[in-house]
Amino acid sequence: MKTDPESHARMTQRRREGHEKKQAQATVEKGLLIVYTGTGKGKSTAAFGMAVRVLGHGLKLGVVQFIKGALHTSERDFLGAQANCDFVTMGDGYTWNTQDREADIATARKGWNEARRMIESGDYQMVILDELNTVLKYEYLPLDEVLSVVGARPEMLHVVITGRHAPDALIDAADLVTEMRLVKHPYREQHVKAQRGVEF
Amino acid sequence: MKTDPESHARMTQRRREGHEKKQAQATVEKGLLIVYTGTGKGKSTAAFGMAVRVLGHGLKLGVVQFIKGALHTSERDFLGAQANCDFVTMGDGYTWNTQDREADIATARKGWNEARRMIESGDYQMVILDELNTVLKYEYLPLDEVLSVVGARPEMLHVVITGRHAPDALIDAADLVTEMRLVKHPYREQHVKAQRGVEF
Repeated sequence: MKTDPESHARMTQRRREGHEKKQAQATVEKGLLIVYTGTGKGKSTAAFGMAVRVLGHGLKLGVVQFIKGALHTSERDFLGAQANCDFVTMGDGYTWNTQDREADIATARKGWNEARRMIESGDYQMVILDELNTVLKYEYLPLDEVLSVVGARPEMLHVVITGRHAPDALIDAADLVTEMRLVKHPYREQHVKAQRGVEF
Repeated sequence: MKTDPESHARMTQRRREGHEKKQAQATVEKGLLIVYTGTGKGKSTAAFGMAVRVLGHGLKLGVVQFIKGALHTSERDFLGAQANCDFVTMGDGYTWNTQDREADIATARKGWNEARRMIESGDYQMVILDELNTVLKYEYLPLDEVLSVVGARPEMLHVVITGRHAPDALIDAADLVTEMRLVKHPYREQHVKAQRGVEF
């Protein structure tokens, strides 16, 4: 990638022109349906990074955390303490901690009722539904109902859904989908434990 | 995935046992080298999600933003305002905005000097080097120097490096690597512009 100054200037000029052309064509503003899925780390984390941007602009944020409700997390401490953020946790920990499908379904329904209220209220600029994909994968909630509510969201509301195994119909409906692909993970290879600031 | 209550209980029991076994083996605590790369969206965003976790625990965070320095971002507004966070921006915008390789190299060096000071000080629990991969790809900084400083970091310091095109040697050195894979992106397909709270 080392180049002489003249070809460097030409290259950056071309890149700048390409960028300006793309920017000129990009005129649409709309509430996006954003999905972070895949088995790699960084799905919920990316959603909470968007939370930082939303709060940095003084916009209003809603978060419903499915599945991880029983775990104490610092994202809940930190974001939940912000004036512009409503942070709701649901669930009795990861699914392997409960052994009662009916109880899991009831918990998912309670979380979804909160999510639905946030989406339909028109009061929020972003709603994050953390681990909702996992809830859908276990069929704790009907996919059709979720797609219908999310599809009818206010025009400028961004909805962010995280979790492994996003259903195909959700990916079809989404505007922006990133798959987090696991390249290397220290848990397995080095017996590293979950650490403060990284996992929770 | 619908199952009768008994096999659901057996399945969750097996899952719980597998999780407990993994947890028992995971005893190592160490500062991790974490890399978010790939062409999908969510790399810097995931780093800023980790920032939320670190700050939520009252730990000390350093951020050096390479490349995007000239852009005004809400993550800088928000994180930079936190007592436990030192947030430094470097660079004259995206690389295509400068057409002077020597100036880009000098800017990268200034950013790296800040990063190096943070890493070597022992004062931080996490240091985020946003878009450093891009700097390395253009060879604005010597890879050997970066690997050597990051490799000699304090034992409990987590370093998070983002950007497309992470060099192979950095991936080899890392503890945790996620590739963000682009599945769907609304810019190209729908001419959606960069929006507050999502991109900046």
